[in-house]
Amino acid sequence: MTMAQPAPAREAAPGGRREAYTTESLLAVAVEVFNERGYDGTSMEHLSKAAGISKSSIYHHVRGKEELLERAVGRALDGLFGTLEEPAAKRGSAVERLEYVVHRTVEVLLAELPYVTLLLRVRGNTRTERWALERRREFDHEVAELLRAAADDGDLRSDVDIRLATRLLFGMINSIVEWYRPKGDGLEHRDQIADAVARLAFDGLLAPGPDH
Amino acid sequence: MTMAQPAPAREAAPGGRREAYTTESLLAVAVEVFNERGYDGTSMEHLSKAAGISKSSIYHHVRGKEELLERAVGRALDGLFGTLEEPAAKRGSAVERLEYVVHRTVEVLLAELPYVTLLLRVRGNTRTERWALERRREFDHEVAELLRAAADDGDLRSDVDIRLATRLLFGMINSIVEWYRPKGDGLEHRDQIADAVARLAFDGLLAPGPDH
Repeated sequence: MTMAQPAPAREAAPGGRREAYTTESLLAVAVEVFNERGYDGTSMEHLSKAAGISKSSIYHHVRGKEELLERAVGRALDGLFGTLEEPAAKRGSAVERLEYVVHRTVEVLLAELPYVTLLLRVRGNTRTERWALERRREFDHEVAELLRAAADDGDLRSDVDIRLATRLLFGMINSIVEWYRPKGDGLEHRDQIADAVARLAFDGLLAPGPDH
Repeated sequence: MTMAQPAPAREAAPGGRREAYTTESLLAVAVEVFNERGYDGTSMEHLSKAAGISKSSIYHHVRGKEELLERAVGRALDGLFGTLEEPAAKRGSAVERLEYVVHRTVEVLLAELPYVTLLLRVRGNTRTERWALERRREFDHEVAELLRAAADDGDLRSDVDIRLATRLLFGMINSIVEWYRPKGDGLEHRDQIADAVARLAFDGLLAPGPDH
C-alpha cells in the first residue's frame, strides 16, 4: 500500500459505507503496531502505513506517537485503577476486597488485552513511558497495601513475605498477556481464567481436605 | 575499547595473573549481550566489543553466535530437565514429585538466571531458537503431566483446568526473571523465593484455618 493511493478506512459501517478513523479506532491500530515492533521501534511512517492513512491525517487526531502511547496506556491504567473504585473493592474485609480486585484485574487485562500488554512492555525512555511506569507502580502498591491489610487481619499466611507475594501474584496475572488469545467474544473463557487465577492465588492447587 | 588494543581478558586468576577466556567465560559475556540487545540484534561485532577480544579469538571457541546461543540455552535446559532426573522427582506420589520439581525449577532459574532469561526470550527465528522453544515446551509438558497425575490422584483441586493451571504456574515462576537481581551469593534469598512459590502455588495466600 503506497501513500499515493487514496487512504482506505479500516472500519465499514453496518450499511457498508466506509468511515474515516476516529481517534479511538486509530489508537487500536497504533497499539497493535507498538506491541508488534516495540514503541521505540515504531515511527510515524510505520503507523501511517499500518493505518493506511497519511501522516497528516494522523496529526489531525493526535500530536504524535507519544500522544498515542499516552492514550493507550492511559486506557489500560484507567481500567486497572477503575477496579479499585468499584463498590465491592471498598466494602468488606481487606481479604474480600483483595480477592475482588485480583479477579477484576484479570478481567480488565483480558478485556483490554492489547492496551495492558503495551503498558507491561513500557520501558521508560520517554516522559510518557516514565509516567506509565510510575502509575503502574502505584497500582501494584495499592494492591500490595490490600495484601498487607489482609495479612494484618490474620487472613493471609504469615510464612510468605508480602512484597514477594505481591510480585509473584502480579507475575502470574501479567504472564497471561503472553499466551491468551481471545476467540470469539472470549467472555466465558475470560471468567474461567479470572476464577482460576483467584483460586490458585488464594487457595492454591491442592485439593481442599483434611490431608492438606 | 578499540580492536587495535591488545585483548584484555575478563578474568583474573587468584594470583593476579590475567587468564584468557574459556568457552564458558566467553559464554557468560555473550549471554549478557544477548539479554541486553536481544539475540537478533546482536552481531559478532557486538560480542567482540563486549568481550574485548577479536572476532577470530571468538571463532577459536565457537563456530559463531548461533553456537553461543545453543550452548547458553542448552545450559538452561540441562538445568531444568536435570531436576526431573533427581531421585526426589522420581519417588513418592505425583503431588510430592510435582512440589519437588516446582521448588527445584525455581532454584535452577535463580542459579542460572541469565541463561534461563535468555531461554524465556527466545523467539524462533533460527533453527537453534526453534529447537530451544521445542525443548522448553517438552519441559512444560513434563510438568503438566505431573499436574495431571496429581489431579487424577485427587490431590489437586478439580475446579481449575490443568492446562490453565500449568500456564499460570509457569507464568508465576518465569516472571521471577523480570525482577530478581542477586545480591551477594543470593543463596538464602533463593531458597526463600523457591519456598514462597511452592507455598503460593500449592497452598495459596490464605491463612490455613477453619474459616477457609
